[in-house]
Amino acid sequence: MSNSSQHRARLLISCADQPGIVAAVSDFFFKQGANIVQSDQYTTDPENGMFFMRIELDTNQQASVQELRDAFSAVAASFQMDWRLEDAQIKKRIAIFVSKEDHCLLELLWRWRSGELDAEIPLIISNHETMKDVAESYGISFYHIPVDKKNKQSAESEALRLIASHRVDVVVLARYMQILSDSFVESLENKIINIHHSFLPAFIGANPYQKAFDRGVKLIGATAHYVTNDLDEGPIIEQDVLRVNHRYAVKELKVAGRNAEKLALARAVKWHIEDKVLVNQNKTIVFP
Amino acid sequence: MSNSSQHRARLLISCADQPGIVAAVSDFFFKQGANIVQSDQYTTDPENGMFFMRIELDTNQQASVQELRDAFSAVAASFQMDWRLEDAQIKKRIAIFVSKEDHCLLELLWRWRSGELDAEIPLIISNHETMKDVAESYGISFYHIPVDKKNKQSAESEALRLIASHRVDVVVLARYMQILSDSFVESLENKIINIHHSFLPAFIGANPYQKAFDRGVKLIGATAHYVTNDLDEGPIIEQDVLRVNHRYAVKELKVAGRNAEKLALARAVKWHIEDKVLVNQNKTIVFP
Amino acid sequence: MSNSSQHRARLLISCADQPGIVAAVSDFFFKQGANIVQSDQYTTDPENGMFFMRIELDTNQQASVQELRDAFSAVAASFQMDWRLEDAQIKKRIAIFVSKEDHCLLELLWRWRSGELDAEIPLIISNHETMKDVAESYGISFYHIPVDKKNKQSAESEALRLIASHRVDVVVLARYMQILSDSFVESLENKIINIHHSFLPAFIGANPYQKAFDRGVKLIGATAHYVTNDLDEGPIIEQDVLRVNHRYAVKELKVAGRNAEKLALARAVKWHIEDKVLVNQNKTIVFP
Amino acid sequence: MSNSSQHRARLLISCADQPGIVAAVSDFFFKQGANIVQSDQYTTDPENGMFFMRIELDTNQQASVQELRDAFSAVAASFQMDWRLEDAQIKKRIAIFVSKEDHCLLELLWRWRSGELDAEIPLIISNHETMKDVAESYGISFYHIPVDKKNKQSAESEALRLIASHRVDVVVLARYMQILSDSFVESLENKIINIHHSFLPAFIGANPYQKAFDRGVKLIGATAHYVTNDLDEGPIIEQDVLRVNHRYAVKELKVAGRNAEKLALARAVKWHIEDKVLVNQNKTIVFP
Repeated sequence: MSNSSQHRARLLISCADQPGIVAAVSDFFFKQGANIVQSDQYTTDPENGMFFMRIELDTNQQASVQELRDAFSAVAASFQMDWRLEDAQIKKRIAIFVSKEDHCLLELLWRWRSGELDAEIPLIISNHETMKDVAESYGISFYHIPVDKKNKQSAESEALRLIASHRVDVVVLARYMQILSDSFVESLENKIINIHHSFLPAFIGANPYQKAFDRGVKLIGATAHYVTNDLDEGPIIEQDVLRVNHRYAVKELKVAGRNAEKLALARAVKWHIEDKVLVNQNKTIVFP
Repeated sequence: MSNSSQHRARLLISCADQPGIVAAVSDFFFKQGANIVQSDQYTTDPENGMFFMRIELDTNQQASVQELRDAFSAVAASFQMDWRLEDAQIKKRIAIFVSKEDHCLLELLWRWRSGELDAEIPLIISNHETMKDVAESYGISFYHIPVDKKNKQSAESEALRLIASHRVDVVVLARYMQILSDSFVESLENKIINIHHSFLPAFIGANPYQKAFDRGVKLIGATAHYVTNDLDEGPIIEQDVLRVNHRYAVKELKVAGRNAEKLALARAVKWHIEDKVLVNQNKTIVFP
Repeated sequence: MSNSSQHRARLLISCADQPGIVAAVSDFFFKQGANIVQSDQYTTDPENGMFFMRIELDTNQQASVQELRDAFSAVAASFQMDWRLEDAQIKKRIAIFVSKEDHCLLELLWRWRSGELDAEIPLIISNHETMKDVAESYGISFYHIPVDKKNKQSAESEALRLIASHRVDVVVLARYMQILSDSFVESLENKIINIHHSFLPAFIGANPYQKAFDRGVKLIGATAHYVTNDLDEGPIIEQDVLRVNHRYAVKELKVAGRNAEKLALARAVKWHIEDKVLVNQNKTIVFP
Repeated sequence: MSNSSQHRARLLISCADQPGIVAAVSDFFFKQGANIVQSDQYTTDPENGMFFMRIELDTNQQASVQELRDAFSAVAASFQMDWRLEDAQIKKRIAIFVSKEDHCLLELLWRWRSGELDAEIPLIISNHETMKDVAESYGISFYHIPVDKKNKQSAESEALRLIASHRVDVVVLARYMQILSDSFVESLENKIINIHHSFLPAFIGANPYQKAFDRGVKLIGATAHYVTNDLDEGPIIEQDVLRVNHRYAVKELKVAGRNAEKLALARAVKWHIEDKVLVNQNKTIVFP
């Protein structure tokens, strides 16, 4: 039976590896009356490596998640942890950016409505009006922010203002065909997920399906990654591929590729909002 | 730098879930000077479920794995754990049983020689002489134990004697075409791995490829599982499938299926010898 | 340059294999001025087997597809062919049957709107009202035909009347949770496609995900097949699987399974409407 | 019943697309009493594209494959075909080049011995002696041709001499760690198959697994391709990928990658020796 005061929470830790971390963390939660439901850890190297940990726990008592945070900060300080304790009951808030293609957007919306994507989607932002009706049919606020060479800075400012006012936790670029400025990206570090329509690092840049066709590859792919200021170089969260053959023209590659795109993006977003992804330099750790 | 007295060990735990397990275990190893390198846990149900845990640790001090075992038994007793602490430096000893088909045997032998399968293979037992040369070319003892309706019991007795004298930890049925007796299976509970040439539970029993052909399936598969006295019903460790089409006759299905068989079996054996598999009733937990 | 009188057509042939079929067919189209763009054939057995062929051709002249049909009937008769010549410009008309779950329906609708599914969808029929809004948002007629034990026959009569009046070519059961009567199925032989939520023939019948969970499988699947009067036994068109592990409860298996379901069904429907599927007894030939 | 004078043959055609090719070819074989068992064609573009065709046929009469070739040359000339008619009873002769790693070699040898690879393997050439015993255990001639900077030309001359004297049809580089000279490659155009240990065009050049590790990809792959004088740029025949995660160090990526390598190479070699691969500029057409 679920206790009304019980909360599922998720702890994420990064720090230099050293003896006693697991013991200190698990002892802390035991004394707080919390039950560790799942625990995963990863060490880059047993000798002087980095330590990463994800714990799911149920708080079986009066202490709120905020009180646990306050109490845990002493443990965290002693190991110089980079950490966060997330309340699983508080859903992540997603802003979806989209242009004219709808497949990634629709996949996210379907998984959201079916409960597979346990998040809030308060708004959709687009540089086109194409997806307005879709947004409205799902009861989601739609903001049309046209972008051209001249207004890029003011457009991004408006987007950032909406992101702030809607208390957005993560931005998902669901085939948003604009390159974001360095300052925009820096203000949302590891909080922007993009879907690239190739199996990175193959076919970096524009027209990946044309390049894949020209090269005659037998598998095409898609890559979901965090956006950094190095275009197409951010930490990869998920990749997927589909088998193709000589009969696929560029058009068919695009059609097939859409399915790889939407599946890879949907999984990456799901893992992100479930606090399963940690970034280690230019790579991700995706806990199971 | 690796200390000469340092040992990698693996702890496997099953017990009823209750608060404080992780804290007690990690505190124990911290006090013993051991460093937890990897830790995975799984609870069937946060409320009154079963708790399963696998820990990889480095013993950074004088205590031998045996001394750790002795010391840990008190912790284990307090939680009524079913547990074992394995010394990763002591390789598991595999007996491979084979009949006439060589693909699974050769895959295991190749992965063993390449170091991918970190085990000892002291012997190969077969009801035919076909694989004698292969065994010898790998420097492995080969025992030909013919089996017919009359001598089944004595043949199994001889096999069990060899298993004992070679101190075998796990028996791998690499396309061994004899059904083992109940008593044989019971004497090696969760220590016999079989490869079934179908995607269980589809096509249970004989001639699965003929049945797959007759049914016109578009994927064929293979299933590696622990052997129990319910034929083809033991806990599944791993499954794999391959895409086929209408052009595959039974013969081609068999040829394709061999690749699914050898891959599924090789992974299952690898996970078993790395102490990654726990059995929970009729299912397996395979830790990553 | 595409000629305005040019038409893409597709010829499908089944007959007993015998010498000269390919020569007769290709000679016929050459003399008619048609260009064979793609040709695939399959013979179950070079000796006395069945011969199956699919040809895509461009009619480069005045003869309409109907005139080609009239002319070809002599060739067909001489080889006792079971055949049809389809005008690729005339889109197949699909009736989608659905109950309460939307994932298969939405996948079909998205692929239809994106042009990937080159068909007409004149109507959606459901035994519930749940999908009414979805249908309307796509501009598709929605018919609510409740079904219970007493009205099954009249409900099917109404559905058949709608199928006739909308000139439907194929019925797609997109998670339609009613068993169709023998007479309904017989009236639409090889024209009803169902998605079964398991990797058939594993887990036939109800609650396949519960059965998959109980059996502890490592892959779950879905099967798109033509409906026959043997429940879950019709010719398989496509199957797909997804990897799962011990952490998946029945609920997670269902969630994961939905993705296998919608992908397998979407591919099967696409192949059907592109005239790529031929039925040979209880199996399908799916031409590439 | 199979006639003793019956032969399976395979016809491969490339030419500019034009009306009447299929009719002329099929009419020719009908008149010769040959039965077309399988036929596949591909046209790059219905308007002015290239036409590719592969036919499997049984010669049901006295005419030898050579006589069919002589007779067919008139048909071929009228369409300016690039063509060849292969006698399926004459097995392709493979020379395997290998260095120190054995996984690709062993996979090929196993598939060869099991009958899956229907070819002759008269010789193995290596720049090391490591694989001598393996070659001998399979009864295959082994030639050790050391290569260094100074003797590269003479080493290649010796290899070419062996290739000629053993009447080799195709050279398979099964992890052969030497770059072949332009003249060597040109003398065996589209007759040298290499396995590249990455999902080309990602990670071109040396140390692809290190590069894959540094980039943090979630899938690693392998690519079998014909060798041209543009390193790693030849026509791709087959690719395969495997899922990896953050726990894979470079060493584990290599171990996992070997399985992708051996599977992709084995399929590519099988398709080549079954005359299923046609090269169209820098791409391949792989008929099913």
